[in-house]
Amino acid sequence: MNTVELIRKKREGLNLTENELNFLIAGYTKKEIPDYQFSAFLMAAFLKGMNKEETALLTKAMLYSGIVVDLSSIEGFKIDKHSTGGVGDKTSLILAPIVAAAGLKVPMISGRGLGHTGGTLDKLESIPGFRTDLNLSKYKFVLKKCGAVLIGQTKEIAPADKLIYSLRDVTATVESIPLITASIMSKKLAEGIDGLVFDIKTGSGAFMRKEKDAKTLAQSLISTAKAFDKKVIGFITDMNQPLGNYIGNWFEIYESIKVLQGEQVDDLNEVTFNLSGAMIYLGGKAKSIQEGIQISKELIRNGKAFEKFVEMVKLQGGDISLIKNPEKYPKAKIHEKVFADKAGYLNTVDCYEIGMAALELGAGRKTMNDKLDYKAGIIFHSKIGDKIKKGDLIAELFTDKKEVVESTKKRILSSIAVSKEKVSSPKLIKQILV
Amino acid sequence: MNTVELIRKKREGLNLTENELNFLIAGYTKKEIPDYQFSAFLMAAFLKGMNKEETALLTKAMLYSGIVVDLSSIEGFKIDKHSTGGVGDKTSLILAPIVAAAGLKVPMISGRGLGHTGGTLDKLESIPGFRTDLNLSKYKFVLKKCGAVLIGQTKEIAPADKLIYSLRDVTATVESIPLITASIMSKKLAEGIDGLVFDIKTGSGAFMRKEKDAKTLAQSLISTAKAFDKKVIGFITDMNQPLGNYIGNWFEIYESIKVLQGEQVDDLNEVTFNLSGAMIYLGGKAKSIQEGIQISKELIRNGKAFEKFVEMVKLQGGDISLIKNPEKYPKAKIHEKVFADKAGYLNTVDCYEIGMAALELGAGRKTMNDKLDYKAGIIFHSKIGDKIKKGDLIAELFTDKKEVVESTKKRILSSIAVSKEKVSSPKLIKQILV
Repeated sequence: MNTVELIRKKREGLNLTENELNFLIAGYTKKEIPDYQFSAFLMAAFLKGMNKEETALLTKAMLYSGIVVDLSSIEGFKIDKHSTGGVGDKTSLILAPIVAAAGLKVPMISGRGLGHTGGTLDKLESIPGFRTDLNLSKYKFVLKKCGAVLIGQTKEIAPADKLIYSLRDVTATVESIPLITASIMSKKLAEGIDGLVFDIKTGSGAFMRKEKDAKTLAQSLISTAKAFDKKVIGFITDMNQPLGNYIGNWFEIYESIKVLQGEQVDDLNEVTFNLSGAMIYLGGKAKSIQEGIQISKELIRNGKAFEKFVEMVKLQGGDISLIKNPEKYPKAKIHEKVFADKAGYLNTVDCYEIGMAALELGAGRKTMNDKLDYKAGIIFHSKIGDKIKKGDLIAELFTDKKEVVESTKKRILSSIAVSKEKVSSPKLIKQILV
Repeated sequence: MNTVELIRKKREGLNLTENELNFLIAGYTKKEIPDYQFSAFLMAAFLKGMNKEETALLTKAMLYSGIVVDLSSIEGFKIDKHSTGGVGDKTSLILAPIVAAAGLKVPMISGRGLGHTGGTLDKLESIPGFRTDLNLSKYKFVLKKCGAVLIGQTKEIAPADKLIYSLRDVTATVESIPLITASIMSKKLAEGIDGLVFDIKTGSGAFMRKEKDAKTLAQSLISTAKAFDKKVIGFITDMNQPLGNYIGNWFEIYESIKVLQGEQVDDLNEVTFNLSGAMIYLGGKAKSIQEGIQISKELIRNGKAFEKFVEMVKLQGGDISLIKNPEKYPKAKIHEKVFADKAGYLNTVDCYEIGMAALELGAGRKTMNDKLDYKAGIIFHSKIGDKIKKGDLIAELFTDKKEVVESTKKRILSSIAVSKEKVSSPKLIKQILV
C-alpha cells in the first residue's frame, strides 16, 4: 500500500477500507509514515469527511494501536460515562460511586483540563496522596475491590490517539466529527467496557456551542459505540452556565462531597442523576432511566454512594480525612467577592469566560506545562433566570495571585448580561439519544 | 501571526492576505514552519482552492523567496516560453534560436525530465560539453552575447518552490491549479522576463489530459502573468501523439537541428512556429502572430536561426562539430524495428505509454536519481489518421538494454489502435488565449 495513494483517495472523497485505515494508523504509530503525510491525510479527512463505517474502522485501527483491557476476570456490567467537558462539570466524581454502589463496575480513564474546562484527573489529584497513575493491574484491583476506579491515560491505551491528537492540535484539524469520535472512542473502548453514556455539552461553555453540532457528535459517538456492540445512551445537556456553583479542582471535589452527602444542588444533581440513572439502566439494574434516577437518589440518601467514594479515594491513596472533613483543606490567600453592578434578571452567562477566569486564578492550564493551584477557583452564585439587585453577591474568587484579582472580577462581570424581562432558566437535559 | 490560524482560515475557504501568504512561505522556506503544518495548509489549499488574487500573491511570495534576475543591463524585450511537458516536445530548442535571431532576448530556465516526459536540460546535456549549470553572471553574459540562453534552476531562484514541490509530491497535493500556477510562475518571473508564451498540452501524453483542465490552467497562468504586468499569450496544443518523430535526448536535439536546417516536420513545425510567432509578436517585432510565424519561417530559410543555435551551444560549452554533423553522434547498440500487427487507420495513440516506452529504453527517469542514456530513444513514424498496412514500419527503438526490447515493442504496439473508418488528424492548435 502507498501512503500518497491513500491520501489522494481521501482527498477525492472516497471511502478508505479497513486495511487502508489500519495501514495509515499502524504506519503513523510506528513512525513509518511521517508527520507531514499524516497531517495531509488529516486535513483531507477533515474536509472530505468520513462516513459511519469509516469512522468505526478508524476507531478500531486506533483502538488496536494499543491494548484493550481485559476485565473478564471482574464480575458485573462495566460502564463508563464520557463528557465533552464544561465548566464546573464534576458529574464523574459523583456518579462513579453511585453507579458502583448500585452494583455495576465503573472503569474510568480520564483526561486533564486544558483551556476553559477542568479535568477529572486534576480534580482528584487535589486530594493529597491520590494516585491517578495506577498501572493496569492496580486499576483492575481497585475496580474489582470497590467497583469504581479513576485513572489517567496509560501508554498501553490507544497510543495512536496521543500522537494523532498532538498533530491535529497544530494542524487545524481538531474540530472534525469523525476524528473527534475516533479519538474519544478508541480510548473509551480500550477500558474494556460493556456500555457507555455520553454527556455532550452544548452552550457558551461547551466545545460544541450549537445544539445542532452537539447532536451530530452525539450521533456519531452512539453509532460508533453500537458498531462495537456497546450499550449506549447519549445526553445533550446545557452548558450555558457553570454546572453547580463551584469551579476549581479542590472546589469541585468539595461540591461533589456535599452532593454525595445529600446536599441539593439543583442543576448538578439533575444532570448527574440522569447520567447515573442511564448507566444503572443500561447495566440492567433498573427498568428505565427514571428508575435508575430513583436508585441514584436512594444511594445518596442511605450514604452508600458516599461510602463508595471514600473507599475509592482510600484505595487510590488519597487522604480520606479531608474527604470526611473537607473544611480542613488549605485555603487560598485571597478571597474576593464580586458584586452585581447592574440590576435585572440574569439573562446570559458567557460560560467560556467564567472557565477562563478560573484558569487565570490558577485553577486551569493554558498549555499542558502550566502548574495548577488546586485550591484556586470560583464560587459562582448566580443562575440564569435569577433576579439580581445591584450589589448582590455574584461570585467569590479564591486565588494566591494578587495580580489577577481585579482583571478577573471585571472578566466575570462583563461575562454576564441582565434583562428587564423575566428570564426562564435553560432546560438542562436537552435531548436523550439512543 | 499564527500558523494554525492561517491553516484554519484556508480550511474554512477564506482568502489569505498578502501578509499571511508571505508569513507562510517565508516561514516554510526558513524552516520555521514545520513540514507537517505546511502539508496541512497545502491540502486545505488543494481542496478549498485559491482565487486569482491569492494565486498571484502566493506566486509573489514564492518568487521573492529568492532573487529576480536583473536583466536591465541587457537591451531588448525578454521573452520565454513555458510548456507543461509532453512526449517529443522539443519546441524550446528550435524557438529559442528563432526568437533570438528575430532580435528578442530569450532567457530560459528549464527543468529535467521525469516520468513519461523529457526535459530540455537533459536534451541539451546530450551534447558533449554543454553546460546547463551556468551561474547567473554567465547566464547574463550568454544572453547578452547571443540573445538566447538555456540553463537549469539555480539555488537563488525561488527556493520556496523546490521545498514546496518536494512536499506536494509526497502529500498528494500536486494536481492543484493555484499551486501549479505559483510553482511555474515563481520560477519564470524570476528570470527577469517581460513576456511569456504558454504551451499547455492536452491529450493522452499530457499532464492535463482533458482540454477543459488545460484551459483552466492556462487561464490561471495567464491571469497570474498579467498580475505581474507581463505580456502573455497561451496556447492549448494537442499531445495525443508524440510531437515530431524523434523521442529521446540526443534524438530530440537531432530533430531540432533538422528543423532548424529547414527540414519540414509538419506537426512540430506548426506548433513551434505558432509559439515563436507569438513570442515575436509579443516582443513587438511583428504586428500579429501570423506575421511572427512568417518571420520564423524566414529565419529558418535564411539560416539565421540555425546560426543562433550553433552560437548558443558554443557559448554554453557544447561540441558544435556534432551540431554541424549530427550523424557522427554515437549510436545505440540495439536498433530494433516495430511493424504494424494490424491494418486500418491509426485512430489513437496512448502517448503516455510511448513516453514510458522511451523511458524504459534509457531516455527517461523513474526517479530523479536514475541515469539517462542520451542516445536511447524512439523514432515514431506513424501519425493519427495514417493508413496502415500489416507489416508497415511503426517505430524504431534504440537502446543498449537488450532486456527491455521485447517488452517495449509490445508496449508500443498495444498503445496504438486502428479503425476501419478514415480518421482525421487532430487539430494541433486547439485554442489561443490572451
